[in-house]
Amino acid sequence: MSAKLSRRRAITLAGAGVAGVAGVAAGAGALVRGGAEHASADQGAAAGAVPFHGEHQAGITTPAQDRLHFVAFDVVTKDRARLVELLGEWTAAAARMTAGKDAGVIGAVGGVPEAPPDDTGEALGLPPSQLTLTVGFGPTLFRDARGRDRFGLADRRPAALVDLPHFAGDALRPEISGGDLCVQACANDPQVAVHAIRNLARIGMGVVSVRWSQLGFGRTSSTSTGQATPRNLFGFKDGTANLKAEDGGLLREHLWVQPGDGPDWMTGGSYLVTRKIRMLVETWDRSSLVEQEQIVGRAKGSGAPLGRGDEFDEPDFAAKGDDGQPVIAETSHVRLAHPDANDGARLLRRGYNFVDGSDGLGRLDAGLFFIAYQRDPRKQFVPIQTRLARNDAMNEYLRHVSSGIFACPPGVRDGGDHWGRALFG
Amino acid sequence: MSAKLSRRRAITLAGAGVAGVAGVAAGAGALVRGGAEHASADQGAAAGAVPFHGEHQAGITTPAQDRLHFVAFDVVTKDRARLVELLGEWTAAAARMTAGKDAGVIGAVGGVPEAPPDDTGEALGLPPSQLTLTVGFGPTLFRDARGRDRFGLADRRPAALVDLPHFAGDALRPEISGGDLCVQACANDPQVAVHAIRNLARIGMGVVSVRWSQLGFGRTSSTSTGQATPRNLFGFKDGTANLKAEDGGLLREHLWVQPGDGPDWMTGGSYLVTRKIRMLVETWDRSSLVEQEQIVGRAKGSGAPLGRGDEFDEPDFAAKGDDGQPVIAETSHVRLAHPDANDGARLLRRGYNFVDGSDGLGRLDAGLFFIAYQRDPRKQFVPIQTRLARNDAMNEYLRHVSSGIFACPPGVRDGGDHWGRALFG
Ligand code: HEM
Ligand code: HEM
Repeated sequence: MSAKLSRRRAITLAGAGVAGVAGVAAGAGALVRGGAEHASADQGAAAGAVPFHGEHQAGITTPAQDRLHFVAFDVVTKDRARLVELLGEWTAAAARMTAGKDAGVIGAVGGVPEAPPDDTGEALGLPPSQLTLTVGFGPTLFRDARGRDRFGLADRRPAALVDLPHFAGDALRPEISGGDLCVQACANDPQVAVHAIRNLARIGMGVVSVRWSQLGFGRTSSTSTGQATPRNLFGFKDGTANLKAEDGGLLREHLWVQPGDGPDWMTGGSYLVTRKIRMLVETWDRSSLVEQEQIVGRAKGSGAPLGRGDEFDEPDFAAKGDDGQPVIAETSHVRLAHPDANDGARLLRRGYNFVDGSDGLGRLDAGLFFIAYQRDPRKQFVPIQTRLARNDAMNEYLRHVSSGIFACPPGVRDGGDHWGRALFG
Repeated sequence: MSAKLSRRRAITLAGAGVAGVAGVAAGAGALVRGGAEHASADQGAAAGAVPFHGEHQAGITTPAQDRLHFVAFDVVTKDRARLVELLGEWTAAAARMTAGKDAGVIGAVGGVPEAPPDDTGEALGLPPSQLTLTVGFGPTLFRDARGRDRFGLADRRPAALVDLPHFAGDALRPEISGGDLCVQACANDPQVAVHAIRNLARIGMGVVSVRWSQLGFGRTSSTSTGQATPRNLFGFKDGTANLKAEDGGLLREHLWVQPGDGPDWMTGGSYLVTRKIRMLVETWDRSSLVEQEQIVGRAKGSGAPLGRGDEFDEPDFAAKGDDGQPVIAETSHVRLAHPDANDGARLLRRGYNFVDGSDGLGRLDAGLFFIAYQRDPRKQFVPIQTRLARNDAMNEYLRHVSSGIFACPPGVRDGGDHWGRALFG
């Protein structure tokens, strides 16, 4: 396959300016989307490139970029070899695009005016913008809804890649849930994230089909101690008590799949849970500040746990107010989601705000596209969400409308490695 | 009304940290969203403030910001005085928010923990980000679908504020078309644009209701000679031949309503047409580079008119190729949209790319949220779009799914002036 790829020509828009099939060359010469040369000093780190290769996939502990385009695909071929070939093509394209280059691969030909361009072009001239592309495999890739082993992978499915149970209050729409494969594109420029997903979809034509996709416009969690904590659409700081890139030992304990956890192909990987959570912001906006803070368990201004002074103070769940009631309510989000209430379980949250227009009832269709990475959803997302779904006072203002779970393998090593190689190998 | 406003307290989150209704103050002090102090030097111009007051509304010739949140409202009250009062409240909030401050007004009370906060909070700590808020009045504000004069404005409706005719190929969805009022929020940070629209909707509760809203993630047109031309989702440069802020006399001729054009209240204003145009990007991506360039009439790489060398060269519509065919095809978008084909008519285009997830058929639901400002739609948008709808080769890849037309009054003068004062006055 790599021989095949190397035969392909890198995209140019050398055909640009050609007037008609007659082929009268005119105007613009070759225009290749470059990499490093775009990330000039004045554009700063936000425009730079994040290394694609490594022990873990980028896009997990990478300091959360500002924008998201998330896509879930259905595999529409029955041909295992074709699927593996696509994963190789995708890997090559992902390595190029995250470096700020064009997608560079499509079908058999490229770079000639009579053929479709090798790249859709809308990111020409844009810097890498810290694009990361993170791949994941859904339960249905291993066995479909009717229990069929589609690609001879059934015995390679990790036990941790559970079918998520029904949670109290779930209002899931199946057509925007699940998926055989997913790709999370994060970047500091939405055009770059959209361009990447679109080109992967284009390269995958006939092999995969877009099942659903979601744009996120503002990160709602910090994933690095170097980042200021952003605010979600309830106006609260989000990500304060998140697992962060700098957490070393905690990442081994809570984030990365360790040797012996399950099948080898997942060692160094992580499990991703996505939940699209509609937030009834109009109702929220009518509730009082006191009520909002009681629901979250933190102060809206500073983000400090109620009763404490600083955002990063530990919450004191035992403290009582003058009225004898807990300062941090029993039904508050922070109390119920905290490791103390969940056998020490933690998540690396990496969600994004969304606004999908309005809902036809005079309200914005807005909320949180929740993304969480973890070592084992059975011990992390599932018990935490079970507790939240039952008791969280915030539920009055939330509707979970989509859900996904994916096994994200470890990073791609330089050389012959590609997405899914260890899984299919 | 302004007396009423001045009685209201500016928002603080002074209640932050209060533990329960008992009101034990703790933690965070007052947290007010500041203005200038956030736009520190290192954040640069993109983070700064655009003046709200002036001869014309901002957000038209303002160099196009990167992000859009557009909203159309239905007026749900019959009470003219209440509507006028809201327009005053909105103006005050818009002046504050465009300066990087909180919305600052809601209902009768504010700033106390037992009341809803005066601002939804998700933009706290964010700089002004060149936020502009541009208001417009739709035909149905003057006379509703059943012909009723709802607010005594029927005789003030400008003749130029036409009901747009049906264009060939229109596939409009009424529920995301039209509207009594619109607000266009543009900013370099989507969180800031979304925050602004949301707070206007919140302040308007009971008076207006969100009819539809649209997020745009990347500007598709440059509106200033200082801006590089961005690319749309067909991968082409967009905005090359746009009307631009620096065009002086052309702006008087084509953009701003002149004295005598119609009712005085619109002098210095402009008419806005919006079209949500789905772009069938998957089909487009399968067409050859030559075909794409023939359809647009420009080179994909450089943006130069076919047969010419530089992006800003004038197209030569008379030139023929070796095959005797016009170098710029008769059905090309640029030929049909060019002033030469339209009695000299020009538009100031200010559209944004959108991706609204996927369409359930394996394709991205993506396209252009087209925005155009002009002096008189009867002489500009309507004839141009009539021509395009009939003959543009690009139509094969387009679907117009929503449409709106709005009369955008001139700018608000400092002091007692507010949105709609001259219209209702
Ligand atoms: C729209 C829905 C949600 C909103 C608005 C929300 C908001 C928040 C906020 C404001 C915090 C406090 C600041 C922080 O530490 O980040 C927080 C913490 C947290 N949330 Fe959520 N959250 C939502 C859904 C969820 C879900 C579905 C889960 C997992 C099942 C979750 C798990 C957590 C965890 C683990 C913490 C940290 C708790 C701690 O250790 O103190 N959240 N969330
Ligand atoms: C998704 C739909 C559309 C796409 C992809 C598109 C794309 C383009 C492109 C690539 C150009 C050439 C570069 C430039 O001068 O900006 C252009 C020019 C232009 N377009 Fe469109 N356009 C679309 C819809 C429309 C509509 C609906 C109108 C108005 C009814 C319109 C009016 C114009 C005008 C006036 C020009 C400048 C022509 C000239 O003076 O050379 N476009 N468009």
